[in-house]
Amino acid sequence: MKVKAAVAHQAGKPLTIETVDLEGPRFGEVLVEIKATGVCHTDEFTLSGADPEGLFPAILGHEGAGVVVDVGPGVTTLKKGDHVIPLYTPECRQCEYCLNPKTNLCQAIRSTQGQGLMPDGSSRFSLDGKPVLHYMGTSTFAQYTVVPEIALAKIREDAPFDKVCYIGCGVTTGIGAVIFTAKVEVGSKAVVFGLGGIGLNVIQGLRLAGADMIVGVDLNPAREAMARKFGMTHFVNPSEVEGDLVPYLVSLTKGGADYTFECIGNVKVMRQALECAHKGWGTSVIIGVAPAGAEISTRPFQLVTGRNWRGSAFGGARGRTDVPKIVDWYMEGKIDIDSLITHTMPLEKINDAFDLMHRGESIRSVVVY
Amino acid sequence: MKVKAAVAHQAGKPLTIETVDLEGPRFGEVLVEIKATGVCHTDEFTLSGADPEGLFPAILGHEGAGVVVDVGPGVTTLKKGDHVIPLYTPECRQCEYCLNPKTNLCQAIRSTQGQGLMPDGSSRFSLDGKPVLHYMGTSTFAQYTVVPEIALAKIREDAPFDKVCYIGCGVTTGIGAVIFTAKVEVGSKAVVFGLGGIGLNVIQGLRLAGADMIVGVDLNPAREAMARKFGMTHFVNPSEVEGDLVPYLVSLTKGGADYTFECIGNVKVMRQALECAHKGWGTSVIIGVAPAGAEISTRPFQLVTGRNWRGSAFGGARGRTDVPKIVDWYMEGKIDIDSLITHTMPLEKINDAFDLMHRGESIRSVVVY
Repeated sequence: MKVKAAVAHQAGKPLTIETVDLEGPRFGEVLVEIKATGVCHTDEFTLSGADPEGLFPAILGHEGAGVVVDVGPGVTTLKKGDHVIPLYTPECRQCEYCLNPKTNLCQAIRSTQGQGLMPDGSSRFSLDGKPVLHYMGTSTFAQYTVVPEIALAKIREDAPFDKVCYIGCGVTTGIGAVIFTAKVEVGSKAVVFGLGGIGLNVIQGLRLAGADMIVGVDLNPAREAMARKFGMTHFVNPSEVEGDLVPYLVSLTKGGADYTFECIGNVKVMRQALECAHKGWGTSVIIGVAPAGAEISTRPFQLVTGRNWRGSAFGGARGRTDVPKIVDWYMEGKIDIDSLITHTMPLEKINDAFDLMHRGESIRSVVVY
Repeated sequence: MKVKAAVAHQAGKPLTIETVDLEGPRFGEVLVEIKATGVCHTDEFTLSGADPEGLFPAILGHEGAGVVVDVGPGVTTLKKGDHVIPLYTPECRQCEYCLNPKTNLCQAIRSTQGQGLMPDGSSRFSLDGKPVLHYMGTSTFAQYTVVPEIALAKIREDAPFDKVCYIGCGVTTGIGAVIFTAKVEVGSKAVVFGLGGIGLNVIQGLRLAGADMIVGVDLNPAREAMARKFGMTHFVNPSEVEGDLVPYLVSLTKGGADYTFECIGNVKVMRQALECAHKGWGTSVIIGVAPAGAEISTRPFQLVTGRNWRGSAFGGARGRTDVPKIVDWYMEGKIDIDSLITHTMPLEKINDAFDLMHRGESIRSVVVY
């Protein structure tokens, strides 16, 4: 079939809107009509050329929501008309990872996904007879896309696509890091570094988990108001702190935070996040993606005295199981997504979303098909 | 009272055997006759001058066992004749740390202990009228010592002092890191870096916990035989591995170890230990003490993809609660201590214990009073 898509032909160039060819779903695959998709920093990371694993030409996009249009042979859990969110971290429920309760990193289709291909090693997209690659197994910058069954979360039909698409990445990454990775307890103290989209979702995750003290750290004072709306109880602007930030935060939290979250991707901040965690039991969770080659460091004494350093990918969520729950939380008013979606646009204007991101004017832009 | 003790007058000099004065126990304190004490690398670290927090003159020693001779006012849980192991990590059962199930790092007397003083800010030891400092709150290199009640584990009376003294530090540090810090599950795969006294105790802890695969890593081939006796299933000598050690260990463990333990104090090895832990869920525990100022580092991607970096002090054990259990394990034959105590000597020969350690000839030397 002919499909309208935003194609990334090469790194550093804008996307171009084109009509590409899309083959129907093969065994275990599902054809999805994408109704809306967020534009995420990870798309920008790849499009910019900074992603060492980026491949071109490809159809980017990994934060979508849509409707099942057709299913391939062997598909048993989805049918035409089901509402779905594509998952760049699938959940096969059969691999060594899915069967280990400590991780969400299903490896069932990892190698082909990393190559921009479907699990059988081929692409469904083509342009003028030449293959165009998939991206993160989702390629939501196309009006129709083919996704493996194990990479689709079935969601309730009354959820608005232009809002819950954000659960496909940013919302789950932030809220999940609190709920599924850190398992923050009621009454905890937390520090969140970086109050962009991920940081704000971490903050509302902390509010949902019943944290007592939610400290937000950001150099941009304009971030304070929104963060307070999401549950932040204390704002710290490092440029206004005299002396070192770490002892300041340790003092503010009366000994250190039970949980800290790095939502920037800055290895220096990752160190600060670890070191302001509480001696004895503080856990620091890295969410941000650091530049290629950057390294974190600290004195081992920080760990020997009881701090715990870990990371979170896709919020530790098992997509098919947990994404529908997060959609419910949104529909029940437990979490706010609407305020975070600052811009919407048609596919033809998708490059504007990248411009808004570069200028720091958007929290999240959503393309509505 | 007059007490025979090995006194550390200054860094880098041998201990001298002297008769010092010891005051009786004050409020909340207990007078203990030390029957045996191990000589540990930490004593050596301080005596050498490498310990930036080392203070002199002091009576070192923190791995003892003995009998209560007298108790000060306010002492309710111990009486004359009780057998005890002094604890350099106390357990007051009342501070914020003791009341948090995630840590064993009781802070009740930390500041005075770090200054070589009893909780009231004074020393019980003196020589020619001048104070001699305590060390780690224990000072087991004296035939009698005064210890706070909260820093004494009461143990069964049929346990031999010259063996269970080792539970006061090395045994608990190694076995505890497995049982209390990492909480290793039956069937786990583990890699242990460094097969000295701590590493051997980690290995027998892993055996006790039912680990399936216990890989030991050491440059010294002479360590293999003893480690196998303690439960090691695979031995790796890095000098015999072609190429990088990390991928070799990942391959040997079929994807990485569930748990890894660094028992050396080398920050490069700490990185290897983290990076050979399994993606998704591997936990790496730092036990070794690194040189002052040394830093660990890695790419944050290692954590974001599910590895967990933490540390362990005194094996995560709560001394008054857990040390008696470990004594039971020894008495029941669940763990071996006898094989690790390679040398015993009277107090007069204590400097020989340091020489044996420097030459790598001992696993543990024990001074028997």
